[in-house]
Amino acid sequence: MTVPLLSPELAALIAAVQPAHAGAMAAARTRQTQLTKPLGALGDLEDISVRLAGVFGSDQPHPRGVAVLVAAADHGVAAGPQLVSAYPPEVTPAMVANFLADTPTGLGGAAVNAIARAVGARVYVMDAGVNADLPQHPALVRAAVRRGTSDLRTGPAMSRDEAVALILAGAALTRQAVQDGADLIVPGEMGIGNTTPAAALTARMLGLDAAAVTGRGTGIDDATLERKLAAVREALARGGSDSTDPLGVLADLGGFEIAAMLGMMLQAAALGKAVMLDGFVEGSAALIGVALAPALADALFAAGECAEVGHAAQLAHLNLKPMFRLGLRLGEGTGGVLAAPMLLAAAATLREMQTFAEAGIPGGA
Amino acid sequence: MTVPLLSPELAALIAAVQPAHAGAMAAARTRQTQLTKPLGALGDLEDISVRLAGVFGSDQPHPRGVAVLVAAADHGVAAGPQLVSAYPPEVTPAMVANFLADTPTGLGGAAVNAIARAVGARVYVMDAGVNADLPQHPALVRAAVRRGTSDLRTGPAMSRDEAVALILAGAALTRQAVQDGADLIVPGEMGIGNTTPAAALTARMLGLDAAAVTGRGTGIDDATLERKLAAVREALARGGSDSTDPLGVLADLGGFEIAAMLGMMLQAAALGKAVMLDGFVEGSAALIGVALAPALADALFAAGECAEVGHAAQLAHLNLKPMFRLGLRLGEGTGGVLAAPMLLAAAATLREMQTFAEAGIPGGA
Repeated sequence: MTVPLLSPELAALIAAVQPAHAGAMAAARTRQTQLTKPLGALGDLEDISVRLAGVFGSDQPHPRGVAVLVAAADHGVAAGPQLVSAYPPEVTPAMVANFLADTPTGLGGAAVNAIARAVGARVYVMDAGVNADLPQHPALVRAAVRRGTSDLRTGPAMSRDEAVALILAGAALTRQAVQDGADLIVPGEMGIGNTTPAAALTARMLGLDAAAVTGRGTGIDDATLERKLAAVREALARGGSDSTDPLGVLADLGGFEIAAMLGMMLQAAALGKAVMLDGFVEGSAALIGVALAPALADALFAAGECAEVGHAAQLAHLNLKPMFRLGLRLGEGTGGVLAAPMLLAAAATLREMQTFAEAGIPGGA
Repeated sequence: MTVPLLSPELAALIAAVQPAHAGAMAAARTRQTQLTKPLGALGDLEDISVRLAGVFGSDQPHPRGVAVLVAAADHGVAAGPQLVSAYPPEVTPAMVANFLADTPTGLGGAAVNAIARAVGARVYVMDAGVNADLPQHPALVRAAVRRGTSDLRTGPAMSRDEAVALILAGAALTRQAVQDGADLIVPGEMGIGNTTPAAALTARMLGLDAAAVTGRGTGIDDATLERKLAAVREALARGGSDSTDPLGVLADLGGFEIAAMLGMMLQAAALGKAVMLDGFVEGSAALIGVALAPALADALFAAGECAEVGHAAQLAHLNLKPMFRLGLRLGEGTGGVLAAPMLLAAAATLREMQTFAEAGIPGGA
């Protein structure tokens, strides 16, 4: 398959994603042996701190704020009456309204809003292609090119140009969030039916059978799971894309919010910022991302292992170790926001702990 | 064995520990089914939120601040040259000085200080019995009755009166922290050699063999592990206490910082506050705690499963599911502080998420 050229803007974004700073990582690893604690006593937090040093190019990384960017979109495959989801597609715009609701405690009454407030993260909401007239709201970023994808069972979910448009929209919102003070970007999503395209993307990119990556999403019953699995198989059977052309796979089997999250990841990495991955849908965007720009992997951190079948396979491919396993399966970026304080804490150990020498304590390497 | 009467003050503290509020828990469980998310999609966070509702007596719990209370003490069994630890006992006072150091970023240059700053927790430091002239410092609470315990291999680590004194000191510091704004108490510890008494306590309270609960602590080698195991066996072989007399076990096999942490847990629970358990030494205090006051278990939350052998057995006995497994084995309360934002987030979901009805979305139970 001849792969079409990328748009110049996307090509530039991909080229800007550079590997982590090896010198800073080596210095951070040495520093962890000199800090006032037994060798290795902070466990995985030490590895995380070293990876953060690589992202931020300093053995004393100082990430500022945390932003969660929630992209919402609808899906052709879910347009009918509960074919692949436990919820009707009307829930997508209703949840967007919920993200933006004026509540007694602030903007938004969804889980991601509540958790973000608890940990001091800022929430951004993007219409990436919701099938509804969304209300005007200053906090809603409008990036839709269409009101939902086409049904991936019968043809490409979107055109290549549409995919690029959403990637660039995700990148633009990320630049805004970084300008507003975020150094840790959490891509999040809302889209009834979106674990179906995520499953199809994952199956194609990893060469796995549909059954290995198709799960219960928001909690579907056996009959719906059977229909969902059939939908994923049907989409794959069309043979509309090939893993050697990751952008083609995204257009063929993806979702608008998945494209937007891909853009967030690429832009965050290109700016030298860290990306916290939430769940399975985010993971599917990351698979496309590392295929386009292998160095993206250096900027990715896994929050939890979510309950969705196939997430473990994504994390294994991305070589990421999840920080917790709380059985989350909500999406919205909730798991990523929940894990953000741990990343900030890992960086703080490198930056704010004294060395044995500074503390005048015998020890260290 | 006839169990001596408790001091009136300790008896009152124990009596004040009451079971969680069942009505608030039931209301919270119902509320979790009405919040704008798929049923169960927040996984373990939902169970945690329900338990917090029980502790705070409200289906919309609103914990304020987080405090980590680090009690430091020395141990007779570790007084000699590295019998049971990779570090000499001089490290205990040196680390206390580190907790209190004036650093460019604030009070303290230890891991617990750095992590606490990252998550907005306040650190308190207690001399529970350190074998050194500690410097005067306004942030150091002096509660020592002796400069380290006696060697538990050859006789009781402390007297019953000493144990009570430290329990009450831990309780007093907890009242101070609560008065300062904490609703979430993280007991923490520093004491070279203290996984040895923790192992002995755990073996006796759970009826386990010493080998099942004696681990590598700060990272000891095989020869030191053998000596440590022999020390635990020797202490147990004296037969100086019986699990039906938990205070007697604490005095016989414990440490001053373990007694202080027990007091923190009892006082926090008695005031209707939540306790976040860090690692193995904290867990040994909790075992004594639930034996004295079974309702204490309702107020306990487990941060991570630490790397120390025997921690899993403690958590199973306490019926607690750890929130993460990051391989931490540092102590100081670091894991508890790291997990605190997750507890705050769990409470926030109950308090700040809209219900389906409030959001005008079809769904919910």
